[in-house]
Amino acid sequence: MAVNLPAPVPAALHPVAGVELGVAMAGIKRPDRKDLLLMRLAPGAQVAGVFTRNRFCAAPVLIAKKNLLGKKNIRALVVNTGIANAGTGRDGLQRALKVCEYAARLVGCKPVEVLPFSTGVIMEALPVERIIAGLPHALSDRGDWLSAAQAIMTTDTVPKAFSRKIKLGTGEAVVTGIAKGAGMIRPDMATMLGFVATDAAVSRKFLEKIVKRAADRSFNRITVDGDTSTNDSFILVASGKGPAVSSPKDLSTLERAVTEVSQYLAQAIVRDGEGATKFVTLTVERGRSEAECRRIAYAIAHSPLVKTAFFASDPNLGRILAAVGYCGANVDVSRISLYLDEVLVAAKGGRHPAYRDEQGVAAMRKPEFTVRVVLNAGKAAATIWTCDLSFDYVKINAEYRT
Amino acid sequence: MAVNLPAPVPAALHPVAGVELGVAMAGIKRPDRKDLLLMRLAPGAQVAGVFTRNRFCAAPVLIAKKNLLGKKNIRALVVNTGIANAGTGRDGLQRALKVCEYAARLVGCKPVEVLPFSTGVIMEALPVERIIAGLPHALSDRGDWLSAAQAIMTTDTVPKAFSRKIKLGTGEAVVTGIAKGAGMIRPDMATMLGFVATDAAVSRKFLEKIVKRAADRSFNRITVDGDTSTNDSFILVASGKGPAVSSPKDLSTLERAVTEVSQYLAQAIVRDGEGATKFVTLTVERGRSEAECRRIAYAIAHSPLVKTAFFASDPNLGRILAAVGYCGANVDVSRISLYLDEVLVAAKGGRHPAYRDEQGVAAMRKPEFTVRVVLNAGKAAATIWTCDLSFDYVKINAEYRT
Repeated sequence: MAVNLPAPVPAALHPVAGVELGVAMAGIKRPDRKDLLLMRLAPGAQVAGVFTRNRFCAAPVLIAKKNLLGKKNIRALVVNTGIANAGTGRDGLQRALKVCEYAARLVGCKPVEVLPFSTGVIMEALPVERIIAGLPHALSDRGDWLSAAQAIMTTDTVPKAFSRKIKLGTGEAVVTGIAKGAGMIRPDMATMLGFVATDAAVSRKFLEKIVKRAADRSFNRITVDGDTSTNDSFILVASGKGPAVSSPKDLSTLERAVTEVSQYLAQAIVRDGEGATKFVTLTVERGRSEAECRRIAYAIAHSPLVKTAFFASDPNLGRILAAVGYCGANVDVSRISLYLDEVLVAAKGGRHPAYRDEQGVAAMRKPEFTVRVVLNAGKAAATIWTCDLSFDYVKINAEYRT
Repeated sequence: MAVNLPAPVPAALHPVAGVELGVAMAGIKRPDRKDLLLMRLAPGAQVAGVFTRNRFCAAPVLIAKKNLLGKKNIRALVVNTGIANAGTGRDGLQRALKVCEYAARLVGCKPVEVLPFSTGVIMEALPVERIIAGLPHALSDRGDWLSAAQAIMTTDTVPKAFSRKIKLGTGEAVVTGIAKGAGMIRPDMATMLGFVATDAAVSRKFLEKIVKRAADRSFNRITVDGDTSTNDSFILVASGKGPAVSSPKDLSTLERAVTEVSQYLAQAIVRDGEGATKFVTLTVERGRSEAECRRIAYAIAHSPLVKTAFFASDPNLGRILAAVGYCGANVDVSRISLYLDEVLVAAKGGRHPAYRDEQGVAAMRKPEFTVRVVLNAGKAAATIWTCDLSFDYVKINAEYRT
């Protein structure tokens, strides 16, 4: 039950010239579901990515990072869902390499020109044979971005995709992206899996800058449960088949579109957060540094007590103040104000005399609302997006493997 | 439904000479429940305490800390449940001071010789009149440690108390303690509320040392939900009415008993954690520093995914590796081993070939088990205690105020 998320997708998903998509049902973890995606890139396509900082990062993440560092042209991405191939040691690496080798032969490139991605259960072995058996089907499939989004889902209840057209100096380009993720979401570099592609021709150097900045304003600003995944990867592809980016203005147009697509996808992950019934924007303002504001925002977002109060539409808002107090930020509590949407709940560190519980309930009953903490200490601010903690979160995660 | 916790209490609770207890039903939040405790101390009793580091710490915490710092003789403790008097600003301080003033008049001491404590809902006003009306009843009540433990409960399902007799050089002394807490439990100095008393005569200087060390080995080693409370307080009283501590051996006997009582109470809080169905001991061994081991242990203990897997008895143990990986500790994942009780689950950073899921399920189905992470990097270790995350945790906290 995703919160305010149009299904299957919000609008037309523009194909990206130079990016060919194919999916297959490989039976990786369960039969009869799309679970394998092959993305082929035109020669000359530029690729940049950011990855999880989890030290137990998955075998495919290690290989994808290495292959990207190699500065080769990347010709294919292979993505499977069902098994994360994380916490699998040396054996996991060998299995991921086998997938790359086979995909390279199929596509006609070198194994180091393939990027592998996996998502699903941790610490189980990747069924290489099933993936190898499925890849020819993915190769012959004429898939689109919607079927690609479907083929990478795990506990997601809806596919997540978004698309924009932009005008560059030399013509019109598109930016289209997909993402997956619903649990183990507290990206520390990127989301579980996100892929955004444009047909614009742009240098790899610039692409590497945008991918970081877009991640910092989107996937790195969300949390469902505070669990940073072992497999987070966010990849940006520029196929070069469309108009060239030829001016500073073009650069910022492209970056804006990539950021917008990324924010849509990141927020979609929260809206479809495991068991989510509420989509909450957390803003911490007038702090001394952005890092301080972010720390406070994440402490609120990760508090199980705050999250269950969101679920209950119960304005037990002292729990928010408690989280501000314990997060380690050096705040002067006597200066803090707290707003729920436009309602002033607390001022000078205590309940505001005019505040009435009914106002809090009314704000929290809505499927979307904003919590705003004003520190009155400086000029920095940060916004993140999160969801509530419901019975269904426990149900989904207590039953995930069964 | 507390996990393996004898009800109402494990064994006889020895009275502590020089400590008089009385409780009352003051109707602070709900009618017909014991919600007010008055603890009177003999003249000359020594008192030491440790308190929450939450910056939004409650008004009574601010006053209790100040009064303890004043090095006066403390003559009375007043504890209420129902309302935490935290996040209440200046008004909260004034209300807590009024309670101290009235209690002082009743007991026959100065207001600064009274320590106030509150626990319950944050950001609501303390009903001073009800407490003042209830105090004379508490004064005339001839209560015991069990009724005292009952009078400080919030979402606790069982009262928590423990008692020990010890032999000192000059005779037998007792150590008896009570605690409360079930949610908002991640003490950063002490638990929600814990009171341990001995009749032994011991200097305040030594008492201040033991209270810190005992807290560090008990209340500072537990977590239910990672939410550090605004009201955590742990108080150690030595009434001086029993035998004097007269040798280094006596000192360590007393410290050991205080630590043992504190550990029992701290573990009781986890066993009675909101919605808890499992009591889990988390040990991280062979790390480079105790701080590193603790950081890893808390990351595991706070992961909602790990906690829901505990609830489901589902050995989805990759979630534990993921938590080790994202907690920020600089670990070499290729050296890590993971044990569930005596079962070797993972070695060298990956699933152990001999490990079978059935073994994991068998261990996790027990109401108590140990998760042991071996870093193979040094000689430090840390142990903490935690519980699972169940449907009932969400239920309790979604409905807490109603």
